[in-house]
Amino acid sequence: MYGLTILGNNSAIPAYDRHPTAQALYWNDEVFLIDCGEGTQMQLTQYKIRRGKINHIFISHLHGDHYFGLIGIITSFGLLGREQPLHIYAPAGLEQIIRLQLQVADTTLPFDLQIHTIETAGTLLSNKHVRVDCFPVKHRIPCFGFRFTEQKAPRTLLKEKAVAAGIPQYFYNRLKLGEDYINKNGEVILNETVTTAAPAPLSYAYCADTVYLPEICVHLQQVTLMYHEATFLQDLEERAAVRFHSTSKQAAMMAQHCQPQRLLIGHFSSKYEDLQEFEKEARAVFPKTDLAIEGVTYLLRRPTEAGS
Amino acid sequence: MYGLTILGNNSAIPAYDRHPTAQALYWNDEVFLIDCGEGTQMQLTQYKIRRGKINHIFISHLHGDHYFGLIGIITSFGLLGREQPLHIYAPAGLEQIIRLQLQVADTTLPFDLQIHTIETAGTLLSNKHVRVDCFPVKHRIPCFGFRFTEQKAPRTLLKEKAVAAGIPQYFYNRLKLGEDYINKNGEVILNETVTTAAPAPLSYAYCADTVYLPEICVHLQQVTLMYHEATFLQDLEERAAVRFHSTSKQAAMMAQHCQPQRLLIGHFSSKYEDLQEFEKEARAVFPKTDLAIEGVTYLLRRPTEAGS
Repeated sequence: MYGLTILGNNSAIPAYDRHPTAQALYWNDEVFLIDCGEGTQMQLTQYKIRRGKINHIFISHLHGDHYFGLIGIITSFGLLGREQPLHIYAPAGLEQIIRLQLQVADTTLPFDLQIHTIETAGTLLSNKHVRVDCFPVKHRIPCFGFRFTEQKAPRTLLKEKAVAAGIPQYFYNRLKLGEDYINKNGEVILNETVTTAAPAPLSYAYCADTVYLPEICVHLQQVTLMYHEATFLQDLEERAAVRFHSTSKQAAMMAQHCQPQRLLIGHFSSKYEDLQEFEKEARAVFPKTDLAIEGVTYLLRRPTEAGS
Repeated sequence: MYGLTILGNNSAIPAYDRHPTAQALYWNDEVFLIDCGEGTQMQLTQYKIRRGKINHIFISHLHGDHYFGLIGIITSFGLLGREQPLHIYAPAGLEQIIRLQLQVADTTLPFDLQIHTIETAGTLLSNKHVRVDCFPVKHRIPCFGFRFTEQKAPRTLLKEKAVAAGIPQYFYNRLKLGEDYINKNGEVILNETVTTAAPAPLSYAYCADTVYLPEICVHLQQVTLMYHEATFLQDLEERAAVRFHSTSKQAAMMAQHCQPQRLLIGHFSSKYEDLQEFEKEARAVFPKTDLAIEGVTYLLRRPTEAGS
């Protein structure tokens, strides 16, 4: 399953039962956490997210509403006897805080906690299923966006055609990787005659907290689902800029530039109780926009699955 | 109003919708916070506790389930534009953590944050309404209990008797403070003939986290309400000792020693879903025991008010 569960959609001050930012990204058989505002460990329980599936946590920046819940997750993992390593990716400063908190509590974790400091754009993680890249966005303090991209899937084998072309079974995996086959007579069987293209890779991009910043579109090509912060409505554009945040309209303009399959907006200011205006404002610019609602899982779908 | 609202009654790992330790103590027109586990700021909202009444926060020790919610309260106070000073009392180490967290977030608070390091038994605060004393308890890391005691109330003036004795009105305040009156003829009017004793001072004592430690009873004389941790049931007495915690029976034995008006027990291990056994076990030793239940306010009553 590929999908994103919203654990918190509010900005700095929790309000109206909305929690600070935290997201769980289901990716094949893993769960990635993206930002961990206060209360995230309770939200994991609330939404039945299996902690054992979490091995990588990505923290965009060190404002409290994006990471105050991280230490609670780490210490609870320890109390629950976790043994598998935990990787955290965050801007400079986090490691010092976490190590200090563990030290004053005289806590020795039963697992290997690896905190990787993000300093610049680059690839944070790459394995069989996913590549995670980060890129700087523009906030009051150092802040990074993340892009999760499915590794290129193998081509789909048209088995009957391969049999008919006399290609031996041992070569099928190489066909899936795109190779042509040359038979005993020196005839070339072109790959595309016995396979079809791999499905387009799924991807998720997380852009928060940031001012409106069209130049990051270079990192956001062909994104399946794009999350962009929308702290204020457009009438508070100036306030958004002063506080290094975006408006709902600006988030939609970003989507207009980058053309993801769908846009998700969140990080709503606690001055707004009703969120409908955010949806209306964004959809006027980019119709395929959804509000990030706590507890809802937004599936990442390939175009054929999505039916759109 | 004098009363204690439970904001969290669970031990280390949140479970069954029970939150980590946090308590709000209503004291005349103020609210004291005692410990601030993760999510305390949401619990303040949930139970409609007025933040503007909070000027003093007491942290028993630096295990996360007792203070991870503090930084969220502090930063939210800042975002809400608080101006009045905030005093925090905690063992060594807290100030370094909080200042570091504010620094990496590039946060300048709009109010004066005073963090007072507790090193030994003594008086932390004394004003017209309250005296707050701390005393060491015994846990895996430095940990303190707290006692909140009402300052001695003035004696009650029996006005008719004072008039009959010919005592002038300007002297009434001195009568309330316990002075005798000497009239023009040199006759002494004994104070107790024109006043009655002040009501007994209300008090609240907080003892957590700690092993069973009868020697702290010296700090717990004539307590109105005594909270004592009870992490496990008595059948896990050994586990409790190893982890520097107490059992429900031990909490009740402490009350048997110290004879508070009422005992409140909490900090229940997340291994217990049902808490009734805690009540049963403690009441067998000290009948006037209650379970600390989230959202419930336990009033501090003078014996005449309590009707007991």
